[in-house]
Amino acid sequence: MNKKTKITTKKRPGNISRRTLLGGMLAAVVLPVKELFALETDLAIPDDPTKVPGPGPSPLGKRSGFENPVRKPSDISSRTPLQDLHSTITPADLHFERHHAGIPTIDPGKHELLIHGLVEQPMKFTLADLKRFPAVTCTCFIECAGNFRTGKEEMTPQDILGLTSQSEWTGVLLSTIFNDVGVQAEAKWFLAEGADAAVMTRTIPLAKAWDDAMIVYAQNGEAIRPEQGYPIRLLLPGFEGNMNIKWLRRIELSEEPYMTREETSKYTYPVKDKIRMFSFEMDARSIITYPSYPQQINKGYVEIRGLAWSGRGKVIKVEVSTDSGKTWEIAKLQEPVLSKAHTYFRYLWNWDGSSTEILSRVTDETGYLQPTLKQLVEVRGPNIGGYHMNPVTAWQIRKDGSVLFKPENYTK
Amino acid sequence: MNKKTKITTKKRPGNISRRTLLGGMLAAVVLPVKELFALETDLAIPDDPTKVPGPGPSPLGKRSGFENPVRKPSDISSRTPLQDLHSTITPADLHFERHHAGIPTIDPGKHELLIHGLVEQPMKFTLADLKRFPAVTCTCFIECAGNFRTGKEEMTPQDILGLTSQSEWTGVLLSTIFNDVGVQAEAKWFLAEGADAAVMTRTIPLAKAWDDAMIVYAQNGEAIRPEQGYPIRLLLPGFEGNMNIKWLRRIELSEEPYMTREETSKYTYPVKDKIRMFSFEMDARSIITYPSYPQQINKGYVEIRGLAWSGRGKVIKVEVSTDSGKTWEIAKLQEPVLSKAHTYFRYLWNWDGSSTEILSRVTDETGYLQPTLKQLVEVRGPNIGGYHMNPVTAWQIRKDGSVLFKPENYTK
Repeated sequence: MNKKTKITTKKRPGNISRRTLLGGMLAAVVLPVKELFALETDLAIPDDPTKVPGPGPSPLGKRSGFENPVRKPSDISSRTPLQDLHSTITPADLHFERHHAGIPTIDPGKHELLIHGLVEQPMKFTLADLKRFPAVTCTCFIECAGNFRTGKEEMTPQDILGLTSQSEWTGVLLSTIFNDVGVQAEAKWFLAEGADAAVMTRTIPLAKAWDDAMIVYAQNGEAIRPEQGYPIRLLLPGFEGNMNIKWLRRIELSEEPYMTREETSKYTYPVKDKIRMFSFEMDARSIITYPSYPQQINKGYVEIRGLAWSGRGKVIKVEVSTDSGKTWEIAKLQEPVLSKAHTYFRYLWNWDGSSTEILSRVTDETGYLQPTLKQLVEVRGPNIGGYHMNPVTAWQIRKDGSVLFKPENYTK
Repeated sequence: MNKKTKITTKKRPGNISRRTLLGGMLAAVVLPVKELFALETDLAIPDDPTKVPGPGPSPLGKRSGFENPVRKPSDISSRTPLQDLHSTITPADLHFERHHAGIPTIDPGKHELLIHGLVEQPMKFTLADLKRFPAVTCTCFIECAGNFRTGKEEMTPQDILGLTSQSEWTGVLLSTIFNDVGVQAEAKWFLAEGADAAVMTRTIPLAKAWDDAMIVYAQNGEAIRPEQGYPIRLLLPGFEGNMNIKWLRRIELSEEPYMTREETSKYTYPVKDKIRMFSFEMDARSIITYPSYPQQINKGYVEIRGLAWSGRGKVIKVEVSTDSGKTWEIAKLQEPVLSKAHTYFRYLWNWDGSSTEILSRVTDETGYLQPTLKQLVEVRGPNIGGYHMNPVTAWQIRKDGSVLFKPENYTK
């Protein structure tokens, strides 16, 4: 670290003796916890924790009663609290959800995956079968294609784009399985079908199977969570979330796409006078998660922090502007930078106390630069829809240190 | 993947029609879940999950009722179920624990870290102060110095060495803080003290602060868990777990080590007729987690999987033997391989059904090769103690496919 970097901190008198420090701690008063933090009903805060032996080890840990990160559920989705997270892996119980008919309960001992259509040998695979194949792990984000909200200043990162999360996914490469069943020469696409009550189906180009598609059974090391497709889901790194079929039960290889509801009526969007469909890759995007609404900052050094990602490969650059977009500075990227993965960025800003706007923009390894909303509207026309929206996100910094989202208008 | 790799799977008749597949699924019978899986009292398994809309999104996710990974708690510790995990990050609620007086309950709004002794300006820092400094993230393991058990064949990886876990830790470099308070030239060591009822204290060489030591407040993105030191812990990548002081409340810089109980009476061990102390780095180690006791394998392809790590840097090689140690083959390492981090390895083995022993051994970037127990005893003498034991671990494969630990005798 640079020895010159001086940051304002609360300086205390220089001669604090151990006696003084410990003097106030002798009485082991146990205070009832404030209502605000009373998630654990038996939680009490001792005045001096060194005088009160605490509870011992347990089979499963729990969060501190002072911490309460939650997804924000609606009828059909829940959103990851990005503003509460300090790195790239999303704890499994905070991974966003988007269901089309709720979370099915599936007995992993009975669940089977059928692979048929244009293959040499149609086969069914149990979970145990899939676990016998050589395994791989891929750390990548999954983002809902409809991950875009705007409209008011009182919005958090979770509100704006909380439909993106990241996990360490483990399973078998789809190419391994396809080599096992044998793919016929005419096959160009494959249908993936879920075992939920929506029987979610999407068609995927076969090339993705030969690239990096996986059938995954583990998320952050453990079995994948029910809302993420337990016991197995399709993983298509970088592709829109909806295509990463959860509760996967069937794959059918074909010459043509199946034109399912979710790739015709839904997950398509206007580009001027045409409709774009099969727009698989999630475009590069970034957001500042600190400072963001409703956080409060103080004059002096503020480390601007956030996430950047691209469905097309690695993030190569994140730029931050602290003067409403007039000039841009390079942010530090947290190593290792992985392909198709949330990448944490940080930029140290010395805030002079004046009102301004802060923004971030990402460039990915294809050279693509995250667009502004204005640029998106120019390309796509005014009926822009809600899919594959990745505009630069701005935060307003007020003189009092409060932070507000800057919603931009666009004609829908 | 290699097209030649043929793995035995359950082959089914070739002509499975969608009609046949779906025919058996029409009745949406809801069956009560078996007692074994009844972790969630309201869990029911529909015969056909596509006919039963499932529960919707929630603020926090839960594991499937079919999955029950747990730490194994004793009075003083709990152990990570390594055999249940498929990659390198340990879910926070499964991170091992080792307490000396239980888990203190600390109000993060009141907690302060005092830094004093041989500094220019003694200072106290609140959690909010610490979060204002430039942050860094380090993905590394923490392993208890006493992570060694043997004695019987019916032992799992969790039983043998479940006192190692890995997290994505975020916080501030200790060097950043030390630059802020100013370190006096005579300072060579620093004492770290916890706010638990054991008032855990250890002395650490100052060089570690200038290298990679951190004060961390986040674990896998979220606030660190109570049993891991909430609201802050010291992180010393690669150093023995006990030194990574949890519930950190005080750091005192000094010329000499403080010779605390935990670095004299404990965490020392005999090397022939002397006692070794201040043995900071955890030596390179590996274990096969699959197959392991009490798993069962079948003839044919078995992917041997496991973890390797070193407190001295990166893992550069893991070798696996499937013939009781006579010959060794190179395992694949899961990328990215990080320094001082759990590294997942995999090796595809074609088991012919005969009884044998399988073993793994790791080499780290310093050239150190994981020793056998025999080699450890030769160097240290018969009174080997339980600290810093990292012997090669062998599993016995029986003809019936059952797997047993191979405990080795050593004179204590």
